[in-house]
Amino acid sequence: MTDYKIKFLPHNKEVKVPAGETLIRAAMEAGVHINASCGGEGACGKCRVLIESGELSGGINKRLRDDDIEKGYRLACQSTVTGDLTVRVPIESEVDASVLNKLSAPRQTARIHTIDFDELKEQGLFIPPLEKAYLELPPPDALDHLPDVTRLVSHFTLTRDEHRLEVDLTVIRKIPDVLREEDFKVTATLARPVREVGKTRIVNVQPGDTSGCNLAIAIDIGTTTVYGQLIDLATGEVLAEKGDFNSQISYGEDVITRIVFAEKPDGLEKLHERIIATINKIIGWITKRADINGECISAITLAGNTTMTQLFLKVNPKYIRRAPYVPTATLYPPVRAIDLGLGLEEHVTALVYPAVSSYVGGDIVAGVMGCGMYRDEALTLYMDIGTNAEIVIGNKDWMACAACSAGPAFEGGGVEFGMRAAKGAIEDISIDPITFEPMLLTVGNTRPKGICGSGLIIMVGVMFEIGLINNLGKYERELDTPRLREGNGVWEFVLAWADETQIDRDIVLTEIDIENLIRAKGAIFSGCVTLLEEVGIGIRDLDRIILAGGFGSYVDLEKAMIIGLLPEIDPARITFIGNGSLSGARMSALTNRIRRDVVNVTRMMTSFELSETASYMNNYVAALFLPHTDMNLFPKLKARHENRKTAGRLTHPSAV
Amino acid sequence: MTDYKIKFLPHNKEVKVPAGETLIRAAMEAGVHINASCGGEGACGKCRVLIESGELSGGINKRLRDDDIEKGYRLACQSTVTGDLTVRVPIESEVDASVLNKLSAPRQTARIHTIDFDELKEQGLFIPPLEKAYLELPPPDALDHLPDVTRLVSHFTLTRDEHRLEVDLTVIRKIPDVLREEDFKVTATLARPVREVGKTRIVNVQPGDTSGCNLAIAIDIGTTTVYGQLIDLATGEVLAEKGDFNSQISYGEDVITRIVFAEKPDGLEKLHERIIATINKIIGWITKRADINGECISAITLAGNTTMTQLFLKVNPKYIRRAPYVPTATLYPPVRAIDLGLGLEEHVTALVYPAVSSYVGGDIVAGVMGCGMYRDEALTLYMDIGTNAEIVIGNKDWMACAACSAGPAFEGGGVEFGMRAAKGAIEDISIDPITFEPMLLTVGNTRPKGICGSGLIIMVGVMFEIGLINNLGKYERELDTPRLREGNGVWEFVLAWADETQIDRDIVLTEIDIENLIRAKGAIFSGCVTLLEEVGIGIRDLDRIILAGGFGSYVDLEKAMIIGLLPEIDPARITFIGNGSLSGARMSALTNRIRRDVVNVTRMMTSFELSETASYMNNYVAALFLPHTDMNLFPKLKARHENRKTAGRLTHPSAV
Repeated sequence: MTDYKIKFLPHNKEVKVPAGETLIRAAMEAGVHINASCGGEGACGKCRVLIESGELSGGINKRLRDDDIEKGYRLACQSTVTGDLTVRVPIESEVDASVLNKLSAPRQTARIHTIDFDELKEQGLFIPPLEKAYLELPPPDALDHLPDVTRLVSHFTLTRDEHRLEVDLTVIRKIPDVLREEDFKVTATLARPVREVGKTRIVNVQPGDTSGCNLAIAIDIGTTTVYGQLIDLATGEVLAEKGDFNSQISYGEDVITRIVFAEKPDGLEKLHERIIATINKIIGWITKRADINGECISAITLAGNTTMTQLFLKVNPKYIRRAPYVPTATLYPPVRAIDLGLGLEEHVTALVYPAVSSYVGGDIVAGVMGCGMYRDEALTLYMDIGTNAEIVIGNKDWMACAACSAGPAFEGGGVEFGMRAAKGAIEDISIDPITFEPMLLTVGNTRPKGICGSGLIIMVGVMFEIGLINNLGKYERELDTPRLREGNGVWEFVLAWADETQIDRDIVLTEIDIENLIRAKGAIFSGCVTLLEEVGIGIRDLDRIILAGGFGSYVDLEKAMIIGLLPEIDPARITFIGNGSLSGARMSALTNRIRRDVVNVTRMMTSFELSETASYMNNYVAALFLPHTDMNLFPKLKARHENRKTAGRLTHPSAV
Repeated sequence: MTDYKIKFLPHNKEVKVPAGETLIRAAMEAGVHINASCGGEGACGKCRVLIESGELSGGINKRLRDDDIEKGYRLACQSTVTGDLTVRVPIESEVDASVLNKLSAPRQTARIHTIDFDELKEQGLFIPPLEKAYLELPPPDALDHLPDVTRLVSHFTLTRDEHRLEVDLTVIRKIPDVLREEDFKVTATLARPVREVGKTRIVNVQPGDTSGCNLAIAIDIGTTTVYGQLIDLATGEVLAEKGDFNSQISYGEDVITRIVFAEKPDGLEKLHERIIATINKIIGWITKRADINGECISAITLAGNTTMTQLFLKVNPKYIRRAPYVPTATLYPPVRAIDLGLGLEEHVTALVYPAVSSYVGGDIVAGVMGCGMYRDEALTLYMDIGTNAEIVIGNKDWMACAACSAGPAFEGGGVEFGMRAAKGAIEDISIDPITFEPMLLTVGNTRPKGICGSGLIIMVGVMFEIGLINNLGKYERELDTPRLREGNGVWEFVLAWADETQIDRDIVLTEIDIENLIRAKGAIFSGCVTLLEEVGIGIRDLDRIILAGGFGSYVDLEKAMIIGLLPEIDPARITFIGNGSLSGARMSALTNRIRRDVVNVTRMMTSFELSETASYMNNYVAALFLPHTDMNLFPKLKARHENRKTAGRLTHPSAV
């Protein structure tokens, strides 16, 4: 896709965006503030900009006066880029552009990086666990009485130098008719041993040549959402992908309530059935979507947290929530998919990621395997942020891990207008530091309905940056804006007025919301600090951060550092791998190298119980500030604030 | 048990019998003829003998006159031995005792030999496949968060130097509650790898100490009868044993009709269900009989012919009866018992003996393993005789095998009064060579009802020996006895008159019956000869014969050689192992050595298709004589017959 250069005046900021991007999103990316309240729907008419040169498409609706159109004005949120442009943003307040420039930094999200198939091959890591081989066998005759299975196995030995093959009973049951269906032309599926000493198993036979269709399913079993991918084992390509709510939700929102339910009579069976039903729904959807025959699916690999994994395998998780909080097992044997009730063929084996402890589960191990940090020299901080945040620090020589309960703030919980990153969620925001007028971008470019996790982080970061809130997360009461008000004894900021929303209510961010966010980021940051202390290294020693989880690709890294969620590190050294659990599941579908390494990796991962670490509570209390009580942990931010105080241009009463 | 010496006069023959044996059976064993028609019931009163010295018990009933009793006469069939005796048999005919001595040889049955547990241990062959270990684990606490499974595995590693343990999902599912039921005191069942490179699996955990109870089930899946044994894996002891009809019989008497039925819709499923039901019935019976808890059963091992094995595993046997007659597989993987529908605990694995070909199945391989011939230098002929007879020749270096269809004569089929070896079956006979009066012994010492296989062999052997039939199996028409007669155009010999039987009909042996026996023995003998020819050795090269099958322990070896069923060999070199299939199944339950060796043994066993061997039909036709057209194959018999002709004492018109 072609990228075009957009220059914003008077800021004189340039940004490159792909064709079709809206001007308002280009402005946000460039760090250019344009008032906009309707989320990009074109309803508020506030985002008027003057096109000085270049061509674009759209940008005109009835909120724009005819004479303005004639002069070259367009609505930024309705304009899509079709070429290089120079755009002038009307500066309607008295604040000069240089102030804007200082405060609004360009958005910088984590570079997305997942190890792809070619990389696997180049690095010699591609050791296919499942291969298909098409064979033309000599039919039996009066002089050749070889049994069907022996015929197949001998042919492998003779023509392909395959030795020590074992044959599954399912193959024995079907082979007589399969061989004779296409005149002894047959495709066999070979399951390679994970370790070299093992034997190759023939797990399936199909009439004719089906060697071109060798697929696997990878599943991330999340507490809230389950994701599935259909993968071509020959190319690594993802043929279809789908997420759906974990239907266990009707028995409990979170891990703890599920465990409680599992202890009731038939509770375990019900939860097991629900997760299987959810996975089957996803399998049905992606196989239909990719229009493939279920017979071609050779494997299923799965990853989930310890409780989800136990429920999936019908292992009661009750002792996970009883002192001293032990899981039943961390390694799980391969299981026949149909024995678990999965809607796959009889020959398919389900492989479930091992866990480290009750709170660092297979989803995190999968992330560590998927991102490859366990093979690398680089000292890496891996963070998977959701309701619970799990942290892994280490490299190819050692790894330490811990889990901390972040609470639901990042997923929209505990926030008055919090919501998931669905249509209408405010996902990005800029606020004019003088007028406090916001520029809102929503998922789906519709009128706002609520605030999602990444939007919340950016919002609090921006508010702290422009001095709307202090380092305790409290609004500066004396600021002169109608958006700031006290309602029911709680101070709040109006992000969008009722008539600009989908819900006909003012959308606000309250001090309680901010407090919840601070607790959440405090839990995560103090987890990192405590774990670093336990292994005796500092933030400065980290070579990189790898983010995983639901909102990692959207979060603005600078804002995440400003609020003290992420340690301060060069944003170029932060990458995002998306759903780490799913990427690990995909990797173990693709290569035995991962299946082999994972057992050693889980043994290598030392788990720390933060609640039993003396310093954790102190670190947590110290992190309940923006960004932190110890500004030395955030040297760049400290320097910026000190510069500003010296310049005296904008006072931050709380930035001491 | 004490043995007593019984001396028979005027024959001057001595025999040792255990206390409680009847005098008539002692006489038969000594080769002393006493007329007796009622099978040992005391009804005919013919078996009057004079006790010259010594003590016995019983022997008196109303068939004996008071003055005879006073003189010391007793009924031999009613007298049980309680001490050394001298017994005079009244010689009522003119034939002198020396003739009797010449003709009636003492009974010589095959020495029973099965390898016992101590022998396994002495020979270093005892490598237990399943072991139980009682452990007292440290419970978890605030400083020890090991997962339940890891706790168990680590304890094994630390205290017993056990490494590379794998844990089954069934164990993972039950371990949390099992550990906590008796305060972390637990018994684990370990399944050892058959090959050293494999891993030991923990397949079961039980609360407390159950290490004393480690059992297995061994099953012989016969076409007609299924046998099961409950075995103590620590002592090798058989705790209970049971045979029952294979309930598939209602769908077909023999292998071929079963295969035909298996091709019908749901036929395979029905046959599979029936054999599983039969096995479950046997398992239920023997576990109840031994009064043990099913939880203590750690394994089940099975052996059967190729078709029975395929039906047991639900593998359609249809191609076994279609040219070119190939089985589906010869090796079968271990299968979870519950997956087959067996009524055993979830942790039990079923291990099925491999086959060699469509007609030399796992039952024969099991026999070869059970008798140990595959480990021995001695050149052995192994014969399993039933409806089908299977033959294996070889030693530790090579083995050749073949199957021949003997027909049902040995199991009572195709014989007018044929029956199984049940109560009332004539199992042994002697015939007075002058009067042709018989001495009958029946199973259960009751009046005769029919003739069983071993009785039939002895009968025809005796008749041929005394010249009642010629070498074509035809009666000597001119002999002067009312027992010989023509009925419906068929010549027959009356073994028991109607009033001496349970069935109120004369029990006879017809020439058709004899013909069927000759066909059966001809098929088996020519199978042996053909197989010997194929491998280029002669009968004289054989070091020993091992017999297996239903009637092998009862058959009189000399008679079996006289009719040409068995090759002529020193009877001391013939042993009987009983149910070879069952004994092999028991062996593979007891030791991994057998499980390891068996794969190589099946590879080593070269299978010959007799029907495709040019010489087989010639050999068969040549064997349709008593004992054979080529008397050089029976040198001892030939010599005996020539001696007699020279002596001229008794003419054998047909013994040319």
